[in-house]
Amino acid sequence: MPPDSPLVADLAEQDLLDRIFPHLPVGSRTLVPPGDDAAVVVAPDGRYVVTCDVLVEDVHFRRAWSTGEDVGRRAAMQNLADVAAMGARPVALVVGLVVPGTTPVDWVEGLARGLGAACRPLDVGVVGGDLSGGPVVVVSVTALGDLEGRPAVTRAGARAGDVVAHAGRRGWSAAGLALLTAGQADVDPELVAAYRVPEPDLAAGPAAARAGATAMLDVSDGLLRDARRLARASGVTLELDDPADAFPEDGARLAGAADAVGARASDWLLAGGEDHGLLATFPPDAPLPPAFRPIGSVTGRSLDPVLVGGRPPQAASTGWDHFGA
Amino acid sequence: MPPDSPLVADLAEQDLLDRIFPHLPVGSRTLVPPGDDAAVVVAPDGRYVVTCDVLVEDVHFRRAWSTGEDVGRRAAMQNLADVAAMGARPVALVVGLVVPGTTPVDWVEGLARGLGAACRPLDVGVVGGDLSGGPVVVVSVTALGDLEGRPAVTRAGARAGDVVAHAGRRGWSAAGLALLTAGQADVDPELVAAYRVPEPDLAAGPAAARAGATAMLDVSDGLLRDARRLARASGVTLELDDPADAFPEDGARLAGAADAVGARASDWLLAGGEDHGLLATFPPDAPLPPAFRPIGSVTGRSLDPVLVGGRPPQAASTGWDHFGA
Repeated sequence: MPPDSPLVADLAEQDLLDRIFPHLPVGSRTLVPPGDDAAVVVAPDGRYVVTCDVLVEDVHFRRAWSTGEDVGRRAAMQNLADVAAMGARPVALVVGLVVPGTTPVDWVEGLARGLGAACRPLDVGVVGGDLSGGPVVVVSVTALGDLEGRPAVTRAGARAGDVVAHAGRRGWSAAGLALLTAGQADVDPELVAAYRVPEPDLAAGPAAARAGATAMLDVSDGLLRDARRLARASGVTLELDDPADAFPEDGARLAGAADAVGARASDWLLAGGEDHGLLATFPPDAPLPPAFRPIGSVTGRSLDPVLVGGRPPQAASTGWDHFGA
Repeated sequence: MPPDSPLVADLAEQDLLDRIFPHLPVGSRTLVPPGDDAAVVVAPDGRYVVTCDVLVEDVHFRRAWSTGEDVGRRAAMQNLADVAAMGARPVALVVGLVVPGTTPVDWVEGLARGLGAACRPLDVGVVGGDLSGGPVVVVSVTALGDLEGRPAVTRAGARAGDVVAHAGRRGWSAAGLALLTAGQADVDPELVAAYRVPEPDLAAGPAAARAGATAMLDVSDGLLRDARRLARASGVTLELDDPADAFPEDGARLAGAADAVGARASDWLLAGGEDHGLLATFPPDAPLPPAFRPIGSVTGRSLDPVLVGGRPPQAASTGWDHFGA
């Protein structure tokens, strides 16, 4: 960003808002746009999907590693992915934003531009928000969606005999973060870009719902951890193929980064978070939507909720925790 | 709180969530409860109202002055007030929560208890959220509501000849904060309580809509500042009565605190924020709902958007800004 950007503290709140709003689409399904006490959004089938995710500076991102636009796109995408994971079409976002007074205004404008860039092509409106000072940047996004008359696809519907399938990348975000942490971003800049801004296929969620998916979730905390959640919610066991068989292209892609930082690509495939792929189960006779590939099968509940290559998983990490050791 | 409360960092994330969830009502209009990627909520008339507000530690509250329960109740109430200000009935909340690892778990449980205490009597469900670490407590609440088939009451519908009316307390929160800041909380503990937890009359919003209110907003940044917003959005001037005439009970109540800290009660009446009363305009022949009292009238737009006692306002402060000087 240009070194001469004013800082947030240099502007009145309204002036800062005036710089943010032009970047944010209103959305064609917004009846009362932002600017009042609340917005009004259509819910054509009499229901809406709602979810919330928070990004905190130095917990989920670093300003040294991510532009404002990266953070805005990522904040939008990870929330829209949760909407898609219910089988719903994203419609609207609201954004609670905390920024230190020392933040360059350009960075905040970039964040708004990133939110807009993620939302505009999907006709998702940014229909409200709030802005406050504080010691670090916090981006709290609530995303809203439309089930288009279909039942919600929860985590709880998987049945023995179903096919387990996955849509999207595996391990790219974790590998990109590892490269950044090791100062080796140049080994594979595309992995680093995947860490900075996940690009989930949001149409895959409604497509899975139309195809009869019995259960689905957004893989945000790693395949093993999220597979376990789906298995427990459904009372089944997920028997996943060996990661090298399930994700051959991703495995090949991650090999160079794994070598560079002394990690195992299979750990990233199984435990890497933040890719925001979709994990879903389908009846055995359902044709999988194009974005999905089969990676295992559902059995009745056995001792372990998740098996990998027929055995309990041995990955170094099974996901991450914001507070724990 | 007991000195032996464990800290957030002592618990795994799931253990912390297990302490929070029991305090939060699901709500009778929640179709898919929290625990999945997203919740599903009913929208009986095919629309919903949505709004977002953020509370940041040491900006909007201090942990030395407010319990977790206070902060939870306040975070819920100020968002529900925005829903009510559209004439809607609050239905659901989602909460993005940031807490430092050094926070006592009891404080976080108190916050959940406060959210629940605000929501349960109104059948408002806490239908989702996210939890993260960070350097200070941040509570980002998104509130959702049901217009029950009525048009939304925006800020933009006031017409010359309308009555200006107000529901709720004026100046109590600002006076309470001033007492706390001056170390004189014992002068009037009820004012201090009003600062810690506003208690807006949420039923007054839908009641105003049913009575034909032409414009309405939640008074969060002070009467003058919010009256100016309504006047500008509607293209009118609001002629407000002198505060001593408009709010005689509040004025009398604030006198002692004003003496104690060397402030003017009329400044709190005109410019004090965070009471979350409702400012509305009604057609001249509409009977006002019981919570409202007339405080002025609407005229065609003159030079000033707001007049007080026939003159441009002279208050020391016209509201507050999160970043500006």
